Amino acid sequence: MIRLDASAPGFAADFAALVDARRESDADVARDVSAILRTVRDEGDAGLRALTQKLDRHDLDQTGWRIAPEDCAAAFAALAPDLREALELAAARIRAYHVKQRPGDLAFTDDAGVRLGARWRAVDAAGVYVPGGRAAYPSTLLMNAIPAKVAGVERLVVVTPTPNGEVNPLVLAAAHLAGADEVWRVGGAQAIAALAWGTDRIARVDVVTGPGNAWVAEAKRQVYGVVGIDMVAGPSEIVVIADGANDPEWIAADLLSQAEHDVTTQSILFTEDAAFADRVTGAVERQLATLPTGETARVAWETNGAIILVPTLADACPLTDRLAPEHVEIATDDPHALFDRLRHAGSAFLGRHTPEAIGDYVAGPNHVLPTGRRARFASGLGVTDFMKRTSFLELDAAALGKLGPATVALADAEGLPAHAASVALRLAKG
Amino acid sequence: MIRLDASAPGFAADFAALVDARRESDADVARDVSAILRTVRDEGDAGLRALTQKLDRHDLDQTGWRIAPEDCAAAFAALAPDLREALELAAARIRAYHVKQRPGDLAFTDDAGVRLGARWRAVDAAGVYVPGGRAAYPSTLLMNAIPAKVAGVERLVVVTPTPNGEVNPLVLAAAHLAGADEVWRVGGAQAIAALAWGTDRIARVDVVTGPGNAWVAEAKRQVYGVVGIDMVAGPSEIVVIADGANDPEWIAADLLSQAEHDVTTQSILFTEDAAFADRVTGAVERQLATLPTGETARVAWETNGAIILVPTLADACPLTDRLAPEHVEIATDDPHALFDRLRHAGSAFLGRHTPEAIGDYVAGPNHVLPTGRRARFASGLGVTDFMKRTSFLELDAAALGKLGPATVALADAEGLPAHAASVALRLAKG
Repeated sequence: MIRLDASAPGFAADFAALVDARRESDADVARDVSAILRTVRDEGDAGLRALTQKLDRHDLDQTGWRIAPEDCAAAFAALAPDLREALELAAARIRAYHVKQRPGDLAFTDDAGVRLGARWRAVDAAGVYVPGGRAAYPSTLLMNAIPAKVAGVERLVVVTPTPNGEVNPLVLAAAHLAGADEVWRVGGAQAIAALAWGTDRIARVDVVTGPGNAWVAEAKRQVYGVVGIDMVAGPSEIVVIADGANDPEWIAADLLSQAEHDVTTQSILFTEDAAFADRVTGAVERQLATLPTGETARVAWETNGAIILVPTLADACPLTDRLAPEHVEIATDDPHALFDRLRHAGSAFLGRHTPEAIGDYVAGPNHVLPTGRRARFASGLGVTDFMKRTSFLELDAAALGKLGPATVALADAEGLPAHAASVALRLAKG
Repeated sequence: MIRLDASAPGFAADFAALVDARRESDADVARDVSAILRTVRDEGDAGLRALTQKLDRHDLDQTGWRIAPEDCAAAFAALAPDLREALELAAARIRAYHVKQRPGDLAFTDDAGVRLGARWRAVDAAGVYVPGGRAAYPSTLLMNAIPAKVAGVERLVVVTPTPNGEVNPLVLAAAHLAGADEVWRVGGAQAIAALAWGTDRIARVDVVTGPGNAWVAEAKRQVYGVVGIDMVAGPSEIVVIADGANDPEWIAADLLSQAEHDVTTQSILFTEDAAFADRVTGAVERQLATLPTGETARVAWETNGAIILVPTLADACPLTDRLAPEHVEIATDDPHALFDRLRHAGSAFLGRHTPEAIGDYVAGPNHVLPTGRRARFASGLGVTDFMKRTSFLELDAAALGKLGPATVALADAEGLPAHAASVALRLAKG
């Protein structure tokens, strides 16, 4: 953990180093992934089976390639009642929020008599990657699958690794709840390849979303263009902007909720109160001592964590914009005043009673968010990631008479005579 | 050109081959591009200068790195009046159409007392690539720059190669008209690298858009994630669905307007009238004989062109969906009946008086569209490509009391105790 003071000499350089610090994968991963993608593209199911045997240590022909819908339904039925209700609450709230994102079609006739517009349609098929093993999160499945279903995707495919053949019943339960149409026991870059190009067993999809390790993220980057993807995901981060009136234990828990995900995650606290900063530091240490995920969280906090003292909390806003964090918490009495000053963040959590974790599960907005400064240009996962827009145009002879001459002039100027001719021929007979 | 009959035996395989035909770049380009990006990333302006000297054959220190705003204004003032008016008409109509794409913010309070929403903001800076040389299109500059300005982008950077140092006055004029803030004389993959990572002279941007050759397209693919990009662009294509009542000369010109762009472009005609197909074939040959761009258009037509006879035009719709073409023209009296059956196309041109070329220039919808079957999942360039959404969430103690227990249950189930603690601590004191 580093502690910086925005008023100290040298702060600009220290902060720039924090902004530019790379916590992401390198070229080795890219080469490995490229080889894996080629194997699945060339060898299909045989390649997928061999890679799964090597990397997940089970034989798909023995354990089964696909998890049956009945198995997912059974996993859901077997959930403890409070967990089932929690998942149902989450699903209902995620659905309600995302329904509001459905885009409307556009159609109008303008002054020149031109009919114009745009029409939205869902993609035919979407694939959702759900990590296996320790980071097997049913919430992730809901956050990816529900927007696809809200968009109207007809074929929703879930891929999830089952290391040593072991399935995660929570993931199966979530697949049932979200209405997944297919669940395949494959993971890693090899699963992304199967979704992008298809194999004999797994038909290709149009969009691939979902988080994963560095190999999965790189695989998605490499298949981008063959299919649509949600984004290139990297290590997670949180910025907490908090005044001294907060309970330091609450803020410490918020910082650690990010840190416990992975050793590469980053938690940053901005405060104007040096004594409060000390209290949070102490609370983090106290909580780390007993936290079951403390080993991971401690590495993340000590390696990537930061506490930055600012003259006023308003000064934290331009600095936060430079970090363009995945999550920003504003723990003050009037969070809107600061939120209005912010431009770049994936998701904002406003007020003292809005810990980031509430957004990970049941609040409704998506928890798949841009990381690694990508909130400068990218948005969280949403319904339109599973849709596309077809613009349209309709002219009659009169409208073409109005727009045609300018088109001919521009096509001629650009050296495209067939473009000009396609209009001029119609004008001549108009 | 191949001619297929949907009723003939073997059609399914022939059509599948047409759908899967690759007209795109291969791995050599990826390696070349990767080296170029590394050079600019490591060496900055020096690398950019050396690559420009080698590839565009001029010395930036001699010709100048940047084109001054006054030079752009002068180029605009020097345009022939009809061309200036045509550009102004195009810019006004593109702006009017794209203003309708501006997304609205979302904010509501739900039954649980949770305040939720999403806020849209423009990216800080966008870079637009404009090809130089033969394919230097002012229309492309307008189609990329105007949506960025409508989005509210404050710093709009144009990069355009000037082979042998020669600038294209039309591009400068369009840059002036679109309100570009900077115009740099750099192109190719090296310009994309400069936009993505920045150099001493050129500050990095957040989003890079614009068409280019295979090197530029691959460079954009490789920097995706460092910056946002519009899409991976490939060779252009058009599908024309036309009945026998069309003037074959008009339809031939439409097919050639695609073919004249590049030898890799594809033009496909679906018709139910074999005699009409013959007439169009004849008209294409006649027009090719005198078309100034006939050499390119002939190669494209002979290599990639197709005429497909279908029992009824409705049968063309599912086949068109499999092609998911960039452009589709529906030249019938009732184009909406067929358009309603289509799911996958970048842009549709409806009726006999709507040649695709009208959409390239002055109609208003964007001409930057998904190619190479990407209309399955991608949309044309639009205002939201230059914006991003920040979701937000605000709970008070009462709302947290309602959503908190389910969050704790799910966080515990996922093995994330700090997530659970960040909520439980607040519930305890709630």
